[in-house]
This record gives sequence, structure tokens and C-alpha cells, in this order.
Amino acid sequence: MRAILKEENLLTPEEALQKLIYSLSPSTPEIEEVDIINSLGRISASDVHSPLDLPPFSRSTVDGYAVIADDTPGELKVIGKISIGEGKDLKVERGEAVEVDTGATIPRGATAVVKVEETIREGDTVKITKKLKFGENIGWVGSDIPKGTLVLRKGERITPEKIALLASVGINKVKVYRKIKIYIITTGNELVKPGESLSPGKIYESNSYYLASRLRLKGYEVVGTSLVSDDKEKIREELYKGISSADVVILTGGTSAGEKDFVHEVIREEGKIIVHGIKFKPGKPTILAEVKGKPVFGLPGNMVSTIMISEQIVEKYLSLKNGGEIDDYITVKAKAINKISADKKRFTYIPVFLFKREDEFYCLAVPFDSYMIGTFSLADGYIGLNPGEEVNEGESVRVYVRKLDTSPVYIGEEEPTIMSKLPQPFRMLPLGSLAAIKALKYGIGDILVVSDIYPEDVKEKEDLVLERDVMEVGDGDEIGYWEWVGISKIVQNPVVKLRYPSSALNFIGKAKIFVPSTILNQGKAIRRERLKVFIRNSKFKNHL
Amino acid sequence: MRAILKEENLLTPEEALQKLIYSLSPSTPEIEEVDIINSLGRISASDVHSPLDLPPFSRSTVDGYAVIADDTPGELKVIGKISIGEGKDLKVERGEAVEVDTGATIPRGATAVVKVEETIREGDTVKITKKLKFGENIGWVGSDIPKGTLVLRKGERITPEKIALLASVGINKVKVYRKIKIYIITTGNELVKPGESLSPGKIYESNSYYLASRLRLKGYEVVGTSLVSDDKEKIREELYKGISSADVVILTGGTSAGEKDFVHEVIREEGKIIVHGIKFKPGKPTILAEVKGKPVFGLPGNMVSTIMISEQIVEKYLSLKNGGEIDDYITVKAKAINKISADKKRFTYIPVFLFKREDEFYCLAVPFDSYMIGTFSLADGYIGLNPGEEVNEGESVRVYVRKLDTSPVYIGEEEPTIMSKLPQPFRMLPLGSLAAIKALKYGIGDILVVSDIYPEDVKEKEDLVLERDVMEVGDGDEIGYWEWVGISKIVQNPVVKLRYPSSALNFIGKAKIFVPSTILNQGKAIRRERLKVFIRNSKFKNHL
Repeated sequence: MRAILKEENLLTPEEALQKLIYSLSPSTPEIEEVDIINSLGRISASDVHSPLDLPPFSRSTVDGYAVIADDTPGELKVIGKISIGEGKDLKVERGEAVEVDTGATIPRGATAVVKVEETIREGDTVKITKKLKFGENIGWVGSDIPKGTLVLRKGERITPEKIALLASVGINKVKVYRKIKIYIITTGNELVKPGESLSPGKIYESNSYYLASRLRLKGYEVVGTSLVSDDKEKIREELYKGISSADVVILTGGTSAGEKDFVHEVIREEGKIIVHGIKFKPGKPTILAEVKGKPVFGLPGNMVSTIMISEQIVEKYLSLKNGGEIDDYITVKAKAINKISADKKRFTYIPVFLFKREDEFYCLAVPFDSYMIGTFSLADGYIGLNPGEEVNEGESVRVYVRKLDTSPVYIGEEEPTIMSKLPQPFRMLPLGSLAAIKALKYGIGDILVVSDIYPEDVKEKEDLVLERDVMEVGDGDEIGYWEWVGISKIVQNPVVKLRYPSSALNFIGKAKIFVPSTILNQGKAIRRERLKVFIRNSKFKNHL
Repeated sequence: MRAILKEENLLTPEEALQKLIYSLSPSTPEIEEVDIINSLGRISASDVHSPLDLPPFSRSTVDGYAVIADDTPGELKVIGKISIGEGKDLKVERGEAVEVDTGATIPRGATAVVKVEETIREGDTVKITKKLKFGENIGWVGSDIPKGTLVLRKGERITPEKIALLASVGINKVKVYRKIKIYIITTGNELVKPGESLSPGKIYESNSYYLASRLRLKGYEVVGTSLVSDDKEKIREELYKGISSADVVILTGGTSAGEKDFVHEVIREEGKIIVHGIKFKPGKPTILAEVKGKPVFGLPGNMVSTIMISEQIVEKYLSLKNGGEIDDYITVKAKAINKISADKKRFTYIPVFLFKREDEFYCLAVPFDSYMIGTFSLADGYIGLNPGEEVNEGESVRVYVRKLDTSPVYIGEEEPTIMSKLPQPFRMLPLGSLAAIKALKYGIGDILVVSDIYPEDVKEKEDLVLERDVMEVGDGDEIGYWEWVGISKIVQNPVVKLRYPSSALNFIGKAKIFVPSTILNQGKAIRRERLKVFIRNSKFKNHL
């Protein structure tokens, strides 16, 4: 008999994070002082105020002559020169000028600088025909950064701009927190390391690869990763290795309360479980715990859950532990080009493709399940919906951006004879006719391909028509496709639903497949299919 | 006599980049193979296609029983169990079920999985009351990523998501380009290293700090940096050091055609100048050159020019040399809350502060000159305008985002008694009344402070009024402020214009300053000033 995590008792990710913070306050690591050139990406451990004015003295912003603005236009006597880097103390009186380099000190009394190309010099006289304004071509002392300005905030991540600013005000060392150390343990009898061979029923382990690189990118130190089978004692051993070598331990897999969910058991035996189970999809069976005074996170085994829970809870806790504010993600408002629905009971995160047209964003959500690491990794971002929430087509929605790809894009039915002719880089989204129809409607995408088998027709005139046969190959159970794909409409009793026709090749000899003749010209032609090709970017006309 | 770079002969940054690419094709460095865990941030040197389907076999997405959907509801005979990671080959016939774990192989013949919590098990019989849909709780083989899908593109920067995807499809090594090596030389008699003491006329060197950290962040290897004075032979020596140890050399300073502009002379003598001078503000005296077959960039000495030219030309060339596409910057559309004007003759880049309200962005451009590294570093992004272009208040403009800061924000007159009471983190933008009035109008900012000395009045009712005296301290030349600051209106003949009152303290004993009594209660009170405080975020009411 299994213990079930009842939805109604679960906390939201935000509540779960707050409960963890309350139970186990995220204490900051030790402070160390580093040279600013080595501080990139580190977290400042103190407020830093500028010890000087910037500029430190009033400087000329051009090569020219420092004068009293009221003396212009006129002929002035050149009483000297101040080069850049010189500390010469000169004073300009009425009728006088001092030659200055760009960046040189402004002599006392001067209120403007005339550019050298706007003067005529004869001996020790300079003729200025222009009337100068007060302050022209002068960068006044303190006019950029007054002394005492907060130039770096405690808890702020140090960027190249901040390093440059610290250097500008003469600071060469900065206090930062020691990097937080993290140990990652992935568990599961089904897991095999990438590079090794895959026997039936096994899959490749990717959680530790994601977590280690993501957390390194965020500035943490991953001190170790390990892969263990569902063996309670081995998990216990690894947990102790993590606790003794790191500040934080993250485990994945085995977090439900079922038969082989040893991670749950070991954490319960060795420490204190603070939260078990959250109202969140994907990622329900999450564990937040304390073992020997250190935070231990148990994430669900599936990759997308790991990514989402890491972002929603682990990284936020780590940010606080780093003395920083919670990281803000880059979000944009995008118009949904198809309807998107959340799970009825849980917060739901759905990956989307993002498109930009004239500075407006559009997003397309594709049918998704939490095992789809590929779909998630290839997507541009995701949206978060409340339980039961729906976003209608055409409505605006907030997208959490993971990447922005502005390459041209192919959307619609998979057609290799077109796809292979397009120049690199080109994003290929062979998601079927529905996606192409929506793209057409909202004016996004560069090449769009719609099948005449797909029931919804388009009024716009296509640029090309390509004909192909739908081939029926083999016997037995029928392999079908997503509803978005034209061919899906002629499969009577699909036993499998795939995303693209080319993935059906897999089933040759095992079942009856339906594929376009341009992908496999074999078997029996059962239907002629007309593909309407819309070339929305004329740049690609001559490729097709 | 100086050689002047005539505007009309200059190229745009884009034309200059194209000319450089044409003259010196950006050849990629050697290819090396690395373990995927070490590939974060590297550039892929080949297209990578998935060698397998994902999932590699049809899997259950829940713990439960694999059945034929048409057999439900009903009582079925349990003929066995498949655990996760097992390769057992079972087949389900009508009336039968197989117990499966989440992630386990689906037995042949099964078309759906019922969740364990929706069943009643008695002996070898399982009772299912629900009607299952075809495909329910099954992740079909290849339904996420079909075999052959392009999972990593040549020229793509490798992210944690891509590392996870490569791992998922079993790939543990990836071909990447060797990191491009860069040598940085900063020149100028006026430059002192941060941490050393500053004598009159000198400033701190910050260009190499910016460039080195920025280029490291972008994934390049900075093999050395050096600071040299305006000494032709030392510059030549350093140039050769750079050429022999790196793929690319970047110099800053000395790029005009003036007296001490030895960088220009040395590059001309040792190599071939491809572009000299671009139509761009800031950053006109830029040099693009070739020395011994390697690209050499001569950037203007001032920091903001260095940043802009690095982004507009150097980084784009390096991206191509890295085998990648030109990096796309994150841009957002923001409503300008004040009027912004470009230089009449050159492309102009102006830093802005960004504010977000209900997913809409607003931007505020502050008076700026290219020596203002502080202003630039503290800003959130910048806008680029064509020569002579103007953006009116309320119009939308594209902003290149460098950071997004969503902390609460203080905008308006500098008033230490308020600013010191606000909780950390709080962004302080004491830019004067005009900025606060615009913020009020567009509904941005959390605490806004407007002076009654500022001529433009606001109709909205303030939350607090704070009174202070304007003090006149000392004798001699009058120190004034930007037009945005209230006090600026009572300074008769300013000889200096500063950004905030606190920076005037600098001039005590040297000139006549005007400061609020809350900053310096000294001298003679000459005017009562009323500050209207608008608390736009009620969360901060009890702080004031």
C-alpha cells in the first residue's frame, strides 16, 4: 500500500519556500576579499560607496582651449597648455585661454572649452568665432558620480560594468561571499550514464548534467555529482558524503512515498522533512528537508520537474543563502497564438516557442508532458498558470524567457525536400498544419507549410504547392500522429501518437505506418496530399 | 597641425564591421572535443543530431496498470509487473493488465495506463471504474524527440538545457571551438591602476577591467592585459607581445590622429589600417586593422566608447570568428517618459533607466556625456538613435537591456532623511524634480519627491510634506545643478553644474554652494523649500 500525497494538503511552491526559510534560515557563507578582476559573477558581501568624485576633477571632453565663456567670440591670449595626465595648476583670467587635451584638467576660472577645429591659432593668440555656452565641453568634478554614491550593493551579483565602475573609482578589491558548495546525487535503477550503451528499459541520466551546469552558471560550486541505484544504504552513504563536503545537497528521484522511494526514507531517517509534496505541475513529489543543519532538496526524478523545482525553489533559496535578493527572471509579455490550459488542481508550467515581430512577442505552446525534456530544452521559455487557469488565443501572457532565438523559422508539416534546402541557421518547427495556420494568422514565421488533409483551410494564397503521396507501410496496429498533423486525419485507429512523420520509421516491420512519400517512398499510396507553402520572407524565395 | 576625422567620410558601425569582415575574414579557431559537463558556454563546432528516439521506448508516466483502453471500465487479470529500468518483454491481451512503475516500459498491446490510486487490487485482479482514453499516461517512443532531430547547431552557445538534452540522448562528448585568445593593452599618461594613489590630473584605468571581464563572460580567453604610457616604443613592444600570444589584440586610447596618438601611428607602421573613424557617438576615433594577419582593434580611450564599440563591432566580429551567429542582444520596447535626442551627425547611444509596471516597460534617459562611466554602469540599458533622430515623450523606443532591476525605487530630489529610512534593497535615483514628475505621470516608482522650487507643479495630492532650508555656504563662484533639480532655479550664475546637492560639499571653502539644510546645516538660510513626497507603494508608508 502506497502513501499518496493528497493535493488538498500540499503547499504552493512559494509557501513551501517560505516554510523552508522559516525552518532553516538561509545563512550566508563566509566572506572573502578578492581582486576585482576575479569578482565577475560573485555576490558582493558589503555596500560599497565611491571614495571619490567621478570625474575626480573637472576635465575637458575635447582637444581645444579652456576659456571664460563670456570672452567668446574673441581673440584670446594663450597662457599655457595642460596635457592629459598633468597636474599643472593654471588660472584663466579675462582675455586668456589655456590649451587643453581631451581629458586634461580644466584650469581654474575657465567655464568652457572650445574645440581645436573651431579655432585659428596664431603665435600665442587663439581666435574663436563661436559664442560658447557655459560649461560647454567640460565634465565637471563629481558630475557623473558624486563621492559617497552607492556603487555596489550588498547581495548584488558583480557584472563587467560594476567591475569597471569599481576600477574607475580606484577600488581594486571587493568583499564577496565564498561560493556555496553543492553536492548532487541522482538515483534510479533505470539510469545509465551518457556515453554508455542503453539496454532495454533504461534511459540516460541527465539531471546531474543539468543541475551541475545550471548551478555553475549561477555562480555556485558543484563539489561532486554521483549516480546511484535504488539502494537505500548507497543513498545514505552518498547523502553523508554530500553533507560532509558541501553546504547544500540535492538528490533527484525516489521522492514519492512508494516502494523504491528510498530517498524519501533515508532523508526521513537521517534528518527532518520540512515539506513533502507541492501543488505544482510538473514536480509534485518534492522534498525540502534538513539533515545535520544543512538544507537537503529531494527533487522528482523527471528532468522537467527537476528544472522547474530547481528554478522555483532551490535557486531562490540559494540566492538568499548567497546574501542576495531572489533572482529575477527575464519575462516578456507575449500574445498567445493558441489556447493554453493549466492542470485543474496544480500550478502548471508549460514550455513555449517565442517569436518576435516588430518588437512584439508571440508565443506558441505545444502539447507537453513532463517527461518531454527534449521539447523543454528546445523551447524558448515557459509560462506559469494557476490551477484551472486558461489563456485564450490572442490574449497576452507572461513568458519566462530562457533564450531568444531570432533565426528564421520553418513552421508546419514536416517536408524534408523543403527543409533541406533552407540555409543555416534556420529553426525547424515541423509541428503540423495547425501551428502553421496560427503563424499565418499572426504574421510570424518565415516558411509555413499547411496540408490540404488538415480540416481547417486558409484563405491566403500560397506561394508554392508541393504534392506528395501518403504511403501506408506494413501491417498491424496503426501508428498515428498529433491532431496538428495532416496525416493524423486519415489514421483510423492509432495505437501510438507521434509528433512528426519521420519518427514513424521506427515502427517499420512492427506496425502499420502512414508516411509521406518524400520521407519514405515504399508501400501503398493511399492518398494524394497537397502542401501549401507560404514564403513569408522573400529572402528565401530563391532557395525553394 | 592635427589630422581631423571628417564626419562625412566616416562609415557607420555596421559598414565598418562589414569592411573588416571583407578585408580579414573571421576564421574560426581549431576544434576540440570536450566532455559535455565542461562544455558550458562553449560554441558548438558541429551540428549534432539525436542518435536515438526520446523516449527511447514507450514509457508509463504514472505508477499504475498498463491496459487496453477499450477494456475499461472493467475487472482485469494482472499478468505481471514491469519495474522501472527493467527490460521485461510482456504482452497485454484483451482482459489483461500489467502493473507498471512510472517510467517503466509499456508492455506490447497496451494502449493506456490507469493510475494506481484509481484502482482496487484484489489478488491477481484489478478493478478499474474509470473509462480510459487511448494513450492516457503513456509517453510514446519518439514522441518527444524523434531520432535524427537536430539537438545542437553548429555555432550555438551551449547552455545547461542543451547539456541536459545531449545527456538525455546519450551523448557525452561534443566538438567545440578552442576559446579565442585576446590580449588587451590600455594606453595613456593619465592612467593609474585602481588601488594606487591618484595624483592631480590622473584618473583610474578601468577599460582593461571592463573588457577583460566582459569578454570572459562572453566565453573568450583573455591571455593578458597591460597598461602603458604614451610611449611609442612601449606600445609597439606590447602590440608584438599581443600578436604573438593571442588571436586578437585590443588597444584603447591614442586612436585619434593627434600628437600623442601613438596607437594610431604604431598600428599604421606595423600593419594595415582598414577603418579609421566611425560615424558613432560615443566612439568616433575607432581603428580596425590587421597586423601580421591578426585583427587589431583600437578603441577610443573613454570608457563608454570602449563599451559601445566593443558591443557594436568587436563582439560581433568575435562571434563570427567563433563560428557563431552574431549575438542577439535582449531588447524590449519601452515608453520614453522624457524626450530623447540624438547627435545631429552621428549614431548616438544613450543610457536609460528601465522601469516595469504591469509588464510594460518605461524608460528614462538622463543627461549624458561619454565620459560618464558611472551613469552608464548604473543604468539598466541603452537606446540607439540614428543621426538627428528624436524620440518624443510617450513614444515607444527599443531598449538594449543590460540588466533588469525590480527593486523598489526612489525618484526625485535628494533628501537624506527620507532615503536613509528606506529598507534595502532600494534603488536611489535622486535625479531631481523633473524625473519625479514624469514618474508620477506614468505611474512608475515607489517614492517620488518633488520640490516646490521646481517650476512645474503637480496636481496629485502628496502623502507627506517635508520642509527644509536652502543654505548658502561660502563665497566666490556659484556651484549650480542640473535643470532637473529644484535648487538649480535659485542659483544666479553657476560656474559648475552638478547632479545631486551632496556632491557640492566638495566645493566647501572653494566656492559658494547651495545645499539643503538636511544635507549641510551651515551658512545662511536663503529660502524655505517644501518637498512633496508621494508614497506610491503603501508597503513603505510605515518607514516614513
